[in-house]
Amino acid sequence: MTKNPGDVPAPPPAGTGKGPAVSRQEFDALFATVRTWGRWAPADRGAWNRVTPDHVRRAAALVRSGTVVPMARPWNTVPGPDNSKPALHYMSDLGDVDPAEPSTHKDFIAVDYHGKAVSHLDALSHVAYRGQLYDGRIARELIDAGGARFGAVSALGALVTKGVLLDLPAVLGGKWLEPGRAVHAEDIVAAEKALDVTIGDGDAVLLRSGSFRRRQELGAWDPDTASAGLHVDAMPLLAERGIALLSGDGDSDVRPSPVEGLHSPVHALAVAAMGVPLLDNLDLEALSAAGAETGRYEFLLLVAPLNIPGGTGSPVNPVAVL
Amino acid sequence: MTKNPGDVPAPPPAGTGKGPAVSRQEFDALFATVRTWGRWAPADRGAWNRVTPDHVRRAAALVRSGTVVPMARPWNTVPGPDNSKPALHYMSDLGDVDPAEPSTHKDFIAVDYHGKAVSHLDALSHVAYRGQLYDGRIARELIDAGGARFGAVSALGALVTKGVLLDLPAVLGGKWLEPGRAVHAEDIVAAEKALDVTIGDGDAVLLRSGSFRRRQELGAWDPDTASAGLHVDAMPLLAERGIALLSGDGDSDVRPSPVEGLHSPVHALAVAAMGVPLLDNLDLEALSAAGAETGRYEFLLLVAPLNIPGGTGSPVNPVAVL
Amino acid sequence: MTKNPGDVPAPPPAGTGKGPAVSRQEFDALFATVRTWGRWAPADRGAWNRVTPDHVRRAAALVRSGTVVPMARPWNTVPGPDNSKPALHYMSDLGDVDPAEPSTHKDFIAVDYHGKAVSHLDALSHVAYRGQLYDGRIARELIDAGGARFGAVSALGALVTKGVLLDLPAVLGGKWLEPGRAVHAEDIVAAEKALDVTIGDGDAVLLRSGSFRRRQELGAWDPDTASAGLHVDAMPLLAERGIALLSGDGDSDVRPSPVEGLHSPVHALAVAAMGVPLLDNLDLEALSAAGAETGRYEFLLLVAPLNIPGGTGSPVNPVAVL
Amino acid sequence: MTKNPGDVPAPPPAGTGKGPAVSRQEFDALFATVRTWGRWAPADRGAWNRVTPDHVRRAAALVRSGTVVPMARPWNTVPGPDNSKPALHYMSDLGDVDPAEPSTHKDFIAVDYHGKAVSHLDALSHVAYRGQLYDGRIARELIDAGGARFGAVSALGALVTKGVLLDLPAVLGGKWLEPGRAVHAEDIVAAEKALDVTIGDGDAVLLRSGSFRRRQELGAWDPDTASAGLHVDAMPLLAERGIALLSGDGDSDVRPSPVEGLHSPVHALAVAAMGVPLLDNLDLEALSAAGAETGRYEFLLLVAPLNIPGGTGSPVNPVAVL
Repeated sequence: MTKNPGDVPAPPPAGTGKGPAVSRQEFDALFATVRTWGRWAPADRGAWNRVTPDHVRRAAALVRSGTVVPMARPWNTVPGPDNSKPALHYMSDLGDVDPAEPSTHKDFIAVDYHGKAVSHLDALSHVAYRGQLYDGRIARELIDAGGARFGAVSALGALVTKGVLLDLPAVLGGKWLEPGRAVHAEDIVAAEKALDVTIGDGDAVLLRSGSFRRRQELGAWDPDTASAGLHVDAMPLLAERGIALLSGDGDSDVRPSPVEGLHSPVHALAVAAMGVPLLDNLDLEALSAAGAETGRYEFLLLVAPLNIPGGTGSPVNPVAVL
Repeated sequence: MTKNPGDVPAPPPAGTGKGPAVSRQEFDALFATVRTWGRWAPADRGAWNRVTPDHVRRAAALVRSGTVVPMARPWNTVPGPDNSKPALHYMSDLGDVDPAEPSTHKDFIAVDYHGKAVSHLDALSHVAYRGQLYDGRIARELIDAGGARFGAVSALGALVTKGVLLDLPAVLGGKWLEPGRAVHAEDIVAAEKALDVTIGDGDAVLLRSGSFRRRQELGAWDPDTASAGLHVDAMPLLAERGIALLSGDGDSDVRPSPVEGLHSPVHALAVAAMGVPLLDNLDLEALSAAGAETGRYEFLLLVAPLNIPGGTGSPVNPVAVL
Repeated sequence: MTKNPGDVPAPPPAGTGKGPAVSRQEFDALFATVRTWGRWAPADRGAWNRVTPDHVRRAAALVRSGTVVPMARPWNTVPGPDNSKPALHYMSDLGDVDPAEPSTHKDFIAVDYHGKAVSHLDALSHVAYRGQLYDGRIARELIDAGGARFGAVSALGALVTKGVLLDLPAVLGGKWLEPGRAVHAEDIVAAEKALDVTIGDGDAVLLRSGSFRRRQELGAWDPDTASAGLHVDAMPLLAERGIALLSGDGDSDVRPSPVEGLHSPVHALAVAAMGVPLLDNLDLEALSAAGAETGRYEFLLLVAPLNIPGGTGSPVNPVAVL
Repeated sequence: MTKNPGDVPAPPPAGTGKGPAVSRQEFDALFATVRTWGRWAPADRGAWNRVTPDHVRRAAALVRSGTVVPMARPWNTVPGPDNSKPALHYMSDLGDVDPAEPSTHKDFIAVDYHGKAVSHLDALSHVAYRGQLYDGRIARELIDAGGARFGAVSALGALVTKGVLLDLPAVLGGKWLEPGRAVHAEDIVAAEKALDVTIGDGDAVLLRSGSFRRRQELGAWDPDTASAGLHVDAMPLLAERGIALLSGDGDSDVRPSPVEGLHSPVHALAVAAMGVPLLDNLDLEALSAAGAETGRYEFLLLVAPLNIPGGTGSPVNPVAVL
């Protein structure tokens, strides 16, 4: 929480632009273009169905140095401009509740994890566009106070695949992309070339904007107001490549949104149209440093959400093995 | 919860014996024998320090079929004989709290995860014996209502290593070990031979008693009263082998405890003496089936706990890659 | 939680009968008879609108001895046959999180309070019959994941009125009514006569079955299976009397339900038809003892639910002033 | 949460002074002066032992108009400068989890209630000074992760007594006292005279600074930085009068604290020395308006905390009956 108004960092400067603006009609056409409804069974796993045992084996074969890089941000119990729903952490036993030998220490955790603070996975039940979940399922028929009967995180299992770090500041210069900077298809292609990687079928894309570093250096801001992230015009490229997971140190969407009337158009395209789960709010700093040191930006990626029946996602600690 | 007393399964029959009984003095001698205090820096990671990049590379090289097997039990919100602290799961948004496009569904989770119900990791701060945590640290000086300043789960990062499934029913016969059945060093050696595996330095041991299957077929019982698990006389062997992680479909301890005055002696030896984190209450049924089919009982294992500063462990979804 | 199956008390013996059976058609006619829709503004407060300042003054004038009797059961964190959703209580500061002078101790509480364990108030948003809340409001239009926009507990404020204890075991004999015993209009009339009280307009009725004492002496059972409580044929009398609140040491409904297809018909009549909030699961033992000693069964009653906007009720500690 | 830095209100202007400064030595002498240790059994109820049945009867006799005024602020789930630990509120059933007739709507609430946001009672276990709770009890021996074994809120029961509203803005002028304004004994005496009330043995004092109105008109600020409240030099007067409860629309302490090294000296004096529970963060606006209208500033007060064994206090909705 901001205890002293003077501590609030200055509003982020405009990025190099979020444009071009996209009308709702253009967006709907785009949605239809990248849609993969009806393709897979079970549909709940969406694009994770792309990852076959072959993909897993090839991903495992990417391991070189054996360095393990976890990417979860610390569990954040303090409210702030980017943490309106702070996580909870209480000790439930200090060896005094159950004092027998051996003594044990226990704790209670709680979190309403969607949002901008906690590293988490969005399952396919998280997002609906025009009332429809992925695969054209009707959200109001399938999700209620008891949870999601389609697209639950428990249907996803775990993901083991090739991860590709698109370290944009490393390519475009600067310590980070300024909040509001839109990432376009040409930026992705430029990053692939510069970093000597190719995004392919079943791959997980990790987009680094440097926002976590910016937060550490300048303090938190409200990412709903301004975030570096993907412009919707980058999504056909990612759809064509057949990605299985989209992730980053933000939540993938550039903000303010370039699309008329939609706050998170990339969420709608990735999750609802393409069946691609999202992984939000990672700490990619260590992975970036490793990339800079080794020159390698692809690796074995493991994502193991909690097995919550009916859940719309999960807090998670994704791991890269270099 | 047992709504009808008639639904409570019969108390489990005695196993083939938990013996031999161990005095507290004998236990203390054993504790001193397997202790690895002072060996590593940072001590917080304990036996996970054994896992070098070389181990990680060799573990990745174990991948054959590319099959991915998550091992977390479902998030259990219903109280029962083995679930005295049910997990919570509530929907926080059904697209009606924040109704903008795209609509989003969100949920809140909470859990006091230590116990017998949720798959979770015990970090080194979880267990103290005679007031001392691993490395001889004084529990009351290092753990308070603010969390653990030594041995927190956030200090562990993630584990990627070779996992070895000791599928005891597959070796000893039967669908499961009866609750109360003690597993001794000779059982481990027999299992290694029968399953063609060798537990070595930095490895993760997964002990399958079949308890999860028994629960599914016969209903839940109170595992504090009777569980199949390790007798303390098996621990010198595991210490000698230099394991990094001990886990299973129970919580590793046989119960009733064979040690005078100690409810969880294996916890004390593994966590407090050896610095070996524990992984409790897995669902190992799919892994067992895969082993039976392929004849292979070793694999790449990933354990990625949530990054909770000061936490004594974490709910987790461990993953085997075969 | 029942740790030992042997600890589960025997299923309660049948009471003296829950009859007569009531068809759904008869119930609907009854519903129409007692309905008070359209009578008050704001409708959210329902029958609490009956309590005018005059009622409050007359209730205050009932104070004789000055004895104060709180009626909340202890916050119950242990699962059991009547506690499928245990309340939570964790210490959040033991003077070690914020160690400054003076040191402070703090705690966190949580509860999904509807059910059979915690003393709580049901606001008018808690119950809908055939999709309609009190006053004919459409439940699905007015209640969503953000809470209730009609009939929230925050609309009730607090209740100060005359309370009348119908101490049924004191009248009918025995330490308690056996679970399953239906309370009819004639029982109420008999209790009024025997205890020298008259239930009138704006009064709060507290029905004592002795279930809390039975629980203490014999152990908990599942009240959904068998509870002493009101038969629906008692409701016209209470409607005619113009009560403002219905409460007791159970949840007011006899169970098994005498009404075809309805698990809680008294809830439907009281809350949805009559606009009468319910107060469930009180500990009325001290109040009963005071009544036995003084011979007075009417008193000043205070009910002060938490001010939760959108809430469907509240845990509460009602107080009688004798 | 402050979404836009521009929304943070300007730091409150200094009040008319928090002085005079008090040394730690002077404070300790004051502590000894007002201390009532050893006086009551059970000591857990502290100054609530002052309230005899006679007091209750006299309080009930104060009722004139029959107006009922609840004083709890709304349950606050949004973080802000005065809400670093937002309360939680989630719907657990929208009639879709348990769809039978009648359908029911249920919710889950949670809160770490001490702090500046939620109306709550401080039980005697909440505060220790120099390691000692009220009555000289040793905090570390009596409070652990399992809760408080002395001074728990469950030991308090409920309070019914005479309440006195010291409506300071009504006496001193202005819509509110500016944050930082210290209230001294002479202010209390002046208020008594102006409002025609006398604080006596067993009474509850409600101090209105107008902070809740200021918050509504100007927005929230951090009350730890600047609050209107009592200077410690007012406490001997209140001790002499024998009050049972101290409460207000703040948390009773003026801030910045006038006492060297102590953040909440009035808490230490009231709770730890005098055994007087505190009631924090009320909404006294309606009560103030009623006082202005009727000219009466004393009334029947009812405080009914939740019955939480081991709890250090409780969220509460205090009620005045005029």
